[in-house]
Amino acid sequence: MNQVDLNCDLGESFGAYKIGLDEEILEFVTSANIACGFHAGDPGVMRKTVKMAAEKGVKIGAHPGLPDLAGFGRRNMAITPEEAYDLVVYQIGALSGFLKAEGVTMQHVKPHGALYNMAAQSRELSDAIARAVYQTDPELILFGLAGSELVLAGERAGLKTAHEVFADRTYQEDGTLTSRRQNDALIQDDDEAVGQVIRMVKEGKVRSLQGTDVSLKADTVCIHGDGAHALHFAKKIRRELRAADIKVQAFST
Amino acid sequence: MNQVDLNCDLGESFGAYKIGLDEEILEFVTSANIACGFHAGDPGVMRKTVKMAAEKGVKIGAHPGLPDLAGFGRRNMAITPEEAYDLVVYQIGALSGFLKAEGVTMQHVKPHGALYNMAAQSRELSDAIARAVYQTDPELILFGLAGSELVLAGERAGLKTAHEVFADRTYQEDGTLTSRRQNDALIQDDDEAVGQVIRMVKEGKVRSLQGTDVSLKADTVCIHGDGAHALHFAKKIRRELRAADIKVQAFST
Amino acid sequence: MNQVDLNCDLGESFGAYKIGLDEEILEFVTSANIACGFHAGDPGVMRKTVKMAAEKGVKIGAHPGLPDLAGFGRRNMAITPEEAYDLVVYQIGALSGFLKAEGVTMQHVKPHGALYNMAAQSRELSDAIARAVYQTDPELILFGLAGSELVLAGERAGLKTAHEVFADRTYQEDGTLTSRRQNDALIQDDDEAVGQVIRMVKEGKVRSLQGTDVSLKADTVCIHGDGAHALHFAKKIRRELRAADIKVQAFST
Amino acid sequence: MNQVDLNCDLGESFGAYKIGLDEEILEFVTSANIACGFHAGDPGVMRKTVKMAAEKGVKIGAHPGLPDLAGFGRRNMAITPEEAYDLVVYQIGALSGFLKAEGVTMQHVKPHGALYNMAAQSRELSDAIARAVYQTDPELILFGLAGSELVLAGERAGLKTAHEVFADRTYQEDGTLTSRRQNDALIQDDDEAVGQVIRMVKEGKVRSLQGTDVSLKADTVCIHGDGAHALHFAKKIRRELRAADIKVQAFST
Repeated sequence: MNQVDLNCDLGESFGAYKIGLDEEILEFVTSANIACGFHAGDPGVMRKTVKMAAEKGVKIGAHPGLPDLAGFGRRNMAITPEEAYDLVVYQIGALSGFLKAEGVTMQHVKPHGALYNMAAQSRELSDAIARAVYQTDPELILFGLAGSELVLAGERAGLKTAHEVFADRTYQEDGTLTSRRQNDALIQDDDEAVGQVIRMVKEGKVRSLQGTDVSLKADTVCIHGDGAHALHFAKKIRRELRAADIKVQAFST
Repeated sequence: MNQVDLNCDLGESFGAYKIGLDEEILEFVTSANIACGFHAGDPGVMRKTVKMAAEKGVKIGAHPGLPDLAGFGRRNMAITPEEAYDLVVYQIGALSGFLKAEGVTMQHVKPHGALYNMAAQSRELSDAIARAVYQTDPELILFGLAGSELVLAGERAGLKTAHEVFADRTYQEDGTLTSRRQNDALIQDDDEAVGQVIRMVKEGKVRSLQGTDVSLKADTVCIHGDGAHALHFAKKIRRELRAADIKVQAFST
Repeated sequence: MNQVDLNCDLGESFGAYKIGLDEEILEFVTSANIACGFHAGDPGVMRKTVKMAAEKGVKIGAHPGLPDLAGFGRRNMAITPEEAYDLVVYQIGALSGFLKAEGVTMQHVKPHGALYNMAAQSRELSDAIARAVYQTDPELILFGLAGSELVLAGERAGLKTAHEVFADRTYQEDGTLTSRRQNDALIQDDDEAVGQVIRMVKEGKVRSLQGTDVSLKADTVCIHGDGAHALHFAKKIRRELRAADIKVQAFST
Repeated sequence: MNQVDLNCDLGESFGAYKIGLDEEILEFVTSANIACGFHAGDPGVMRKTVKMAAEKGVKIGAHPGLPDLAGFGRRNMAITPEEAYDLVVYQIGALSGFLKAEGVTMQHVKPHGALYNMAAQSRELSDAIARAVYQTDPELILFGLAGSELVLAGERAGLKTAHEVFADRTYQEDGTLTSRRQNDALIQDDDEAVGQVIRMVKEGKVRSLQGTDVSLKADTVCIHGDGAHALHFAKKIRRELRAADIKVQAFST
């Protein structure tokens, strides 16, 4: 029987600022990527999000980002591999404090935003990130864009990895995501998005915008956690994955 | 035979900004309190400082501070006990990432600056900090001002604690430090400063500015790490403590 | 005929984080206090908010706060008068850049949150803030809690000042606001809140929680801009002030 | 008679962190670029630096940088032109507060580090920066790399501009600076550096690393302000420029 993990970025509120329907979305996902205070999140938000995820039995991962709160970690920054290493170790560590206090184990690490995207295309950055994860805890699973440099670097470093796919993003024939700057980057139709995920999980294939089939591995699917539609979609994909005999579950046991 | 630990605040550089003679002072101290990125320090500085201390066999502690880089963590802030708990868990965690990557164990936690001073006088803040330390790792030793609320809270929480004394600060008859706003807060004469420490270690007493003897416990002595005189004094106190048959060593083994 | 200004804190969004119904509330207020990037706001938010207020003919003021984004400027910090001076000059200047680019004039300055509250009770802090305002632009009007040290300091500095009152807060018999930590700090009933304002404007008096009448001056009323109820209340108070023959208008012409 | 301006980046200390020999270098330069709190500097440092420069008769400019204190504004960030506009308006405004308080006029604006370098090659970023400067104050002079997009954008915007040259950097045959990542980016010999400047000022030419002569305009020369050698060099270049009958003076009068 096929299986897949559903993950969502959580804990992205900051101080008086609230973002995301964290409590609601936790009902539908199996892995939570919790922001660590650089691109979003703060110590209080981290504590509450860890506690909430733990109570609902959702597996927890660190979601380290660039030091750019004003840009929500979405602006590329020319950091060195050494700087990437340092900020990933720091952020995994920071989150791990709250996991220890709560008595739960960290399952994975998924870089955020621009760090994730830059790593996907840079072997050097990816190797630094993978090394940071491994040296902090070799049992952690590294999440990266399916087939990207980040996943390859994780494997080289001796880490378990998870190939991540996106339900509502279109793909190019080289297996990369269509840039958000293009009009056809997003899949607007929910049924089409769910269908894309089911095919990726069952057949290991996705139809690119160029019309060709691209092979990829789909270990975990990224789900949004912001806005009413996100909740609706999370419920829908979870239901339809089951209907398609795909088991939805996290990696660790 | 008497013994005492010598500790110093380290890793307080930030980005392009350098503070402290970290490498040199590590020759003389037995415990290093490493800044965790809130009042000072950054991920790269933390990695280098942990590595340097580990190589020299100096025991490592987290030195969490208030989120006030512009004020170097020295300005009191009206944080709640819950906020204190959160920022201590976060910062211990962040530093622990680098310790794990380096394969060494954290010995202690010493709050920095205004957090240390506010805690010394507040049972509520101290309980929150002690709980943060205990829940992150019950083996950690909590450093606090000798006889202060922070040390008492550590004991209540079930932690090992270390009463900290200051070589170059004068004491009031209630056992508190003379405020830095007063002219006679500092001991200018090195021999007098060393003499004060030796008496605190051997007799458990210090002569207050009011002329009375105050009882206190001296488990660890705070040494400065900034400026040429700091190095000179560190060398001197280390030498004279030995000459007085006081063993200088850290707590963990 | 009596008159009063209605002011609201605006431009408190930050990066990806949205707070406040700025566009809607601007229909009802006559003065906008725009956050300057320390406790809230960022350069892009400032530009948009200045433009929006200018287009709607609402007078603009700087709303400088403590350097504490995580605490939204609501946590007291032990800053020196000199530090208060510096951060007020900086923030007035920063906002003035956007006003110049938009071709409009700054009307006033109203410190935010903990800075406002600390200043209300500290002559030293208030004098530093008033001096900062005066030296940056002597034509600016300084808003402060009615009858507080801040208004007095503004007068000493040679500034025009505006005594600010609150519609939904209860008063103590010494003219201070009831602390938010107390249960009876807020007036829950909208009619009661409006009635309190009308009496303050027309009679210069407010009934304290202790049952005595307190004299105060009501030049400007603080209105909230967050949440659906805030909008409803703004509309209501504006309507009822007019019905009571009180002209609602800003200070500058 | 030829003339040229000597400029230096100043006010780059932050809180407890000190960088630069600001007071000393102000004896030798004619224009001071003062950091505005994003990549370096803080409100207190800005106030003191403005005062010091004003007292010594050195002309003052804003030195806006990227919001990256940890990277000292030296790491490229993928900001949009609109974000560049906003952060330049904000920072010019912030510094202008201290100039008004001190009663002096701002002469120029020189972007810092990565912002300067990215602008030099991007017409879009440069146009946004030039527009920010113009709309804040059309009398300001925009400093940019000689012959770069930034200077061209300034001219298009209707600003006075100053072509900036570097004494100790080598040039490529297309007029750009040799990347610091290359070994031959810096001129180590002081006489050679001074000679390069004198030729740039007198002949409008520089010998590129490829051996060809490149034409450029040299309105202002960037001098470093950090380290003992910087002071020595500043004194030397000032003396030798005079000896070569080149008048060293700022732009405004």
